[in-house]
Amino acid sequence: MDYQLEPIGIVHSSIIDRKNAPRQGYDGGVEAILELKLQVMDGLSGIQVGDEVMVLIWLHQAKRDVLQVRPGHDPERPITGVFATRSPDRPNPVGLHRVTVLKIEGLQLTVSPLEAINETPVIDIKPVLKRCHEE
Amino acid sequence: MDYQLEPIGIVHSSIIDRKNAPRQGYDGGVEAILELKLQVMDGLSGIQVGDEVMVLIWLHQAKRDVLQVRPGHDPERPITGVFATRSPDRPNPVGLHRVTVLKIEGLQLTVSPLEAINETPVIDIKPVLKRCHEE
Repeated sequence: MDYQLEPIGIVHSSIIDRKNAPRQGYDGGVEAILELKLQVMDGLSGIQVGDEVMVLIWLHQAKRDVLQVRPGHDPERPITGVFATRSPDRPNPVGLHRVTVLKIEGLQLTVSPLEAINETPVIDIKPVLKRCHEE
Repeated sequence: MDYQLEPIGIVHSSIIDRKNAPRQGYDGGVEAILELKLQVMDGLSGIQVGDEVMVLIWLHQAKRDVLQVRPGHDPERPITGVFATRSPDRPNPVGLHRVTVLKIEGLQLTVSPLEAINETPVIDIKPVLKRCHEE
């Protein structure tokens, strides 16, 4: 079985390295542009300005051999399994980010807030399902 | 650059084919077991019964060359780009499911509701971030 992802686009952001990336979108994510590839353009129809979407990205600077971390690098917090945290370091470094679409120009979607590093590959975009009281 | 995923486990479910799979968890998802691989066991520490988590799965029966669908196979609804839908058919067939952890026994997590087909590979588990009023 093959589990190979094919990026559908790339992130353009003012966040240029991991050290300065905020830990969660609401903790300092910025406006960023998702530049999609021409061959997936038809997949964008139906997305509108104002929509909230989930963006899946490939955390290209993450370490894949990490199974436990100290959340927020906070010495007061216990060592925790990565599946109980949003650490980018994890076996499959797929990041999940809820953003609002601010502008659509051809293959470029301006979204906010996004804490991804510049040139992060985009894997997927999905609508937010509105049904309950938390994300 | 390599974008190869390595499954961390597999879904055991009574849903055995795609035709009978409900379209969303709250639309008929069932109790299912995530059986994790021994080599990722340390990554589970900190997950507790009652937690809500996001499960990322590899939709192994999906078609990757589909860019537009009719949502819900409903002839009344317009053809829509896959990135504006939760269709399993999409360039990168990663499914995103919000579930509650009902039981933890070693490497087996019982969760609900999950609409994944039996033997679907599991890619990642992430905590739900509680901050706003929709999913």
